[in-house]
Order: sequence, then structure tokens, then C-alpha cells
Amino acid sequence: MSKVLIALALCLSLLTGLPAMAADAEEQAQAAIDTRQGLLKVVVSYFGPIVGMARGQIPYDADVVKNNAGKVAVLLPMIPDVFRKDTRDSGLETEALDDIWESMSDFQAKTETATERALALAAATEDGQEAAMKAFGALGAGCKGCHDDYRQQD
Amino acid sequence: MSKVLIALALCLSLLTGLPAMAADAEEQAQAAIDTRQGLLKVVVSYFGPIVGMARGQIPYDADVVKNNAGKVAVLLPMIPDVFRKDTRDSGLETEALDDIWESMSDFQAKTETATERALALAAATEDGQEAAMKAFGALGAGCKGCHDDYRQQD
Repeated sequence: MSKVLIALALCLSLLTGLPAMAADAEEQAQAAIDTRQGLLKVVVSYFGPIVGMARGQIPYDADVVKNNAGKVAVLLPMIPDVFRKDTRDSGLETEALDDIWESMSDFQAKTETATERALALAAATEDGQEAAMKAFGALGAGCKGCHDDYRQQD
Repeated sequence: MSKVLIALALCLSLLTGLPAMAADAEEQAQAAIDTRQGLLKVVVSYFGPIVGMARGQIPYDADVVKNNAGKVAVLLPMIPDVFRKDTRDSGLETEALDDIWESMSDFQAKTETATERALALAAATEDGQEAAMKAFGALGAGCKGCHDDYRQQD
């Protein structure tokens, strides 16, 4: 087991900033907020090029849409995981509304709907640009449905 | 197409903070840095409970290890995507070393190795705790191999 233990020790040494190691409740809450915001930034990074295509700023590329929609479809089901930690009482700055933890099953259902629409977008790339952009609109509406209920409005 | 356009407009309105909309090069670089740090925070959030099990802080749970290793295995291949934007000349604070963009094929190969090890960890949960912890050690060493070469050392 010694090699395993050495490898584990190396591995543990990597994890500076790990939420479980956080010194106090506020640090743990901040780590949870940073993680969920991080996940959504990754979603946006895959969403962005498709927005550029919808706007005509970059040429439509079915392969990119299919790939990126596939990435979004594996990221969205992680949303309930990263929102598991309830930060309502943390007092920290966040756009996440308390309703998330008061209606977790609906919040989760909305991420499932959006995931299905991301998969539908990936599939729609086989049917041409118009079908893909229509499916992208449905995905965007799915995102908006969740943001309307659970994200602070600007 | 009008419903599609309305849905698209709604969708576009969601994407405040989208890198492609950033006002200038520095904002775009900062968005790229935030996105890649965000991805790695999500990786850490799935890694963390397995570290807790390795340390004996929480009971070993094969289902959690299998699920989380599976999540890590879909996240790691996104690393080259989120590091695609070269921020070497941005002057912004980052632990990412310039070598990433000078050796992108090696950087990508290291993420592929780590991905294989995350899949191996998920599979090893079928063979009991010791096999899983050994596979987890290998995954940790895979992470470290990339950090040693491409992340600023503390």
C-alpha cells in the first residue's frame, strides 16, 4: 500500500482550496458560491459561440453546435449538485434566490428540462441550421425559465 | 420564425458576462481565466468527498465514488477547451504557466491520461474499497503531473 499512500498524499496536497478543508462556515459558503458560478461560466463558454452564430457574427458550424450542446447537456445536470449547499444564511453576495432551496425539486426539474433541450439541440444539428436555431431558442427559453424564478433580476 | 427569434432574443438577454460580448481584450482574458478556474472548482467539488473518504473523515461510499469519478471524467476533457484562449500577454493574475500554450499537445495529453484514470476509478469501485483507493491515487498522481508542469507552484 505504500505507493498508494504516497500517491494519495500527493493527491491531497493538490487540493488547496478544497471546500471540505475550508476553515470556517463562511469560507465553505463562499467556496460553494464560487463553484456554482464557475459551473455556469463553463456553460456560458460553450453557449457563447452558438449565440455568435445565431447573431450572424460567426458562420454557422453544425459540428461546433453539436459538440457544444453535448457539453452543455453534461454540465446542466451538475447544477443541483453544486447548489446542494444551502447558502441562504451566509450573508454573502450571490444572485441565487432563496427559492432554490425552498423549491429544490422544481429547480432540479427545470435543469432536467434544459438538459433535454440541450440534447435536442445536439440532435437537431442533423436537420439543418433552421432546425438547430429553433432548438437553440427552446434551450435559451429553458435557461430563462430557471433564471426568472431562481436568479436575482438585474 | 418569429417565435424562434423571440426565444433567441430572450436567450441572448441571459448572457450578460459572455466572453464574446466583453468590451475589450482584458475583459475577455479575465473571463477566460474565470471560466477555467471555474471548471477546476467544479472538478474539486466532485473530488473532495473522495478525498474525505481516503482520509477516513467520511465513510467510504462506492456509489458516490463511482458517480463523482464519472463527473470528473466528463469535466477533464473540457480543460483544453477552456484553456484555448492564450492569456500569456494579458498581464492578469493567474497560476497558469506560459508552458500551457507552448506545449498544448502535451497539456492535452495529460488531461487525456487523467480522464482515463477517472474512468478507471469509476470502474474500480466494482472491485472494492482498496482497488478504488489505489485507482484514486493514480488519478491524483495524474492531476499532479499536470499541475507540476503547468501550474505555478506555491
